[in-house]
Amino acid sequence: MLIEMPRHTEIFGSIKIHEMQRVLKIDSGRFANPRAKDIPFDEIKDILRRFAIIVPVKDEKIHLLDGVLRAIPFDCTIIVVSNSKRDGPDIYKMERDLVSYLHDLTQQEILIVHQKDPDVGLAFHDAGYDHLLHKDGIVRDGKAEGMIIGMLLAKALGKDYIGFADADNYISGSVREYVIDYAAGFCMAESPYSMVRLHWRYKPKVIEDKLYFKKWGRVSETTNKYLNLLMSTHTGFETRVLITGNAGEHAMTTKLADILSYSTGYSIEPYHFVCLFDQFGLGIEDNTDADAAKAGIEIFQIETLNPHIHEEKGDTHVNNMLRGSLQTVYHSKLCNEYVRAKILEELGDILEWEGPKENPIMPPIREIDTSKFMKMLKSSAETFARFEQGAIMLEEEEKREYFKEESFQTVL
Amino acid sequence: MLIEMPRHTEIFGSIKIHEMQRVLKIDSGRFANPRAKDIPFDEIKDILRRFAIIVPVKDEKIHLLDGVLRAIPFDCTIIVVSNSKRDGPDIYKMERDLVSYLHDLTQQEILIVHQKDPDVGLAFHDAGYDHLLHKDGIVRDGKAEGMIIGMLLAKALGKDYIGFADADNYISGSVREYVIDYAAGFCMAESPYSMVRLHWRYKPKVIEDKLYFKKWGRVSETTNKYLNLLMSTHTGFETRVLITGNAGEHAMTTKLADILSYSTGYSIEPYHFVCLFDQFGLGIEDNTDADAAKAGIEIFQIETLNPHIHEEKGDTHVNNMLRGSLQTVYHSKLCNEYVRAKILEELGDILEWEGPKENPIMPPIREIDTSKFMKMLKSSAETFARFEQGAIMLEEEEKREYFKEESFQTVL
Repeated sequence: MLIEMPRHTEIFGSIKIHEMQRVLKIDSGRFANPRAKDIPFDEIKDILRRFAIIVPVKDEKIHLLDGVLRAIPFDCTIIVVSNSKRDGPDIYKMERDLVSYLHDLTQQEILIVHQKDPDVGLAFHDAGYDHLLHKDGIVRDGKAEGMIIGMLLAKALGKDYIGFADADNYISGSVREYVIDYAAGFCMAESPYSMVRLHWRYKPKVIEDKLYFKKWGRVSETTNKYLNLLMSTHTGFETRVLITGNAGEHAMTTKLADILSYSTGYSIEPYHFVCLFDQFGLGIEDNTDADAAKAGIEIFQIETLNPHIHEEKGDTHVNNMLRGSLQTVYHSKLCNEYVRAKILEELGDILEWEGPKENPIMPPIREIDTSKFMKMLKSSAETFARFEQGAIMLEEEEKREYFKEESFQTVL
Repeated sequence: MLIEMPRHTEIFGSIKIHEMQRVLKIDSGRFANPRAKDIPFDEIKDILRRFAIIVPVKDEKIHLLDGVLRAIPFDCTIIVVSNSKRDGPDIYKMERDLVSYLHDLTQQEILIVHQKDPDVGLAFHDAGYDHLLHKDGIVRDGKAEGMIIGMLLAKALGKDYIGFADADNYISGSVREYVIDYAAGFCMAESPYSMVRLHWRYKPKVIEDKLYFKKWGRVSETTNKYLNLLMSTHTGFETRVLITGNAGEHAMTTKLADILSYSTGYSIEPYHFVCLFDQFGLGIEDNTDADAAKAGIEIFQIETLNPHIHEEKGDTHVNNMLRGSLQTVYHSKLCNEYVRAKILEELGDILEWEGPKENPIMPPIREIDTSKFMKMLKSSAETFARFEQGAIMLEEEEKREYFKEESFQTVL
């Protein structure tokens, strides 16, 4: 891959935010130049082998999920966390059948589990991590909660990188690009605490019977403005470096995943920044991870070559996203009266604002014994399945081994 | 890549048409199974190095062309044949600047030329190939004519494979998939006379403010029906194997390109089949290439993972395409009275049909001395430019060589 060098990097405490970088060529030819970095495919493949891609899914059209799963490179492990309906038509069952069929064809490692499986809740309870459980012991609804389940499984598999891909993507092949873009980011990273966030080149909208290639959504624009303002009010210098506040398409090192806290609902993505700003923006504080502060946190923002077309979710969704995102900024430790007043003004205009509620926060997952967590799911959770890489071939090899031993014994 | 095996192959004379094959995984893991073929990326890369991708362009949005050029893998050579406006804003100039800029960044080999360059016309005239020239000696308008210019340049470069990619593709990354799909087809081919045609998984249309994922366009459906009928009326067995009659996205071996004739306008793609049917469908005839008849002609039809979204061209375009396509079938040697009557009926309904005109046909390009053709463009055509692979590095190496020699002389 040939990718632009960031022209500028903003440093805020221990956090480095690299300016947006464009993908110049997905398959490049090992020519670098002062403006662009060439990353050989072999290096990208090395990352892919240590990479889990989590696909949260909730009643998505099965065609779309099929395309997304087919687009994720073989070397990655896929973790599907479903929160789909189980009665009426059992959508989860359809998803699992699809996963099993694709594994049969491709032999790629795929895990699947249902978010509401009582045994998943039990495994969290046993791990002493109740923060995403309902009173009845079942995991709450919510994409953030599903993402945490996926991250624990990725950790249990010993993966070094964890990425996310939505299942409602109309351009299947673009998901391949996302994964390669993530990997390219990690190839450039110098710190083991790094994150890659994608910025879509265009997000086409249907406007009167035509496609209009929008570059900026209203929610992103507003969220980014306030996240930048959080930094600016502290450094005294205005910046617009941050352009991926709401990036659902993002990936991070497992080391970084371990020290983050997670917000719920639509605020999980902007909260990554708020959480990092609060921990690392103003020097060492009580909640600062000393090792990470020393190594530094690195954030890459990559502009995809592909445009992004997904399911339209309507105005309520947009307003909820905006409220979730700005609430998270409002309650940042770094948020001063000026920014707070601005946010109230912004939201007052467009929403029936019920006051700046604090989003529930789920603390770091670092202490959870993930191999025990996965073992519990494996032994008891009805909806959990792990299809291993090259399972068919392995079985055959085992068979051969078995027969070899047998014939060996016969000869003896 | 992991790709479905064709479940069925229709044989018609020396022509083998493989049933549509789905892309199961773009990046696979070297596990094959009885239903799917695994093609290692190394094999695909071997093809890419011998591959030229021709991009015909006519006043396309420069953003779209930019995306398409960035998506074509580095190992291929790109040949841009422009028929864009030169006065008012000089669109060709913008395209050439873009090409030069991208070459500067990526070092990929790119050629560009303008279809209406008088020296291009002159080169054709000198080669004794006047079939695409106006009376004034300039090449006619038309995508087919541009495609022929591109093919000659590909041949001059010694390429073994020639493919096409339209410049009005809204999903840039899908062009990468097209090229990889072509290469996968050639990896599967047993005959040196082979062609790969792509079938889009979906072709989304804006229908009332929503995207509707259409699988079949009206033109394709009708063209395919009549091309299949041409075969069926001769074999006596009904078939629906052919589903890519209008595939603008197609590629072929240079050997096959050499023995084909080319129709003009929208009928160029369906005419590939008609031309092959007429030459090879009914055993050896006067116009049959004996070598190709012996080796067999192989046609692969691959269903892309990505959907296809391009510029909407309106009803006149659709009707012209339909007329062009069916005229070509109508004038096939194999077309009997029954099929002719059916075509007249079909077109009568929807068009002001002016009678079944014969599309102008351009004979094979095999006899043209392509290296002389390119030399002429190089020496005189103002719009011709060839940016070579790794030119910057080469220049630097040459400089080093030069200094080395000089210092050598000094020492002497």
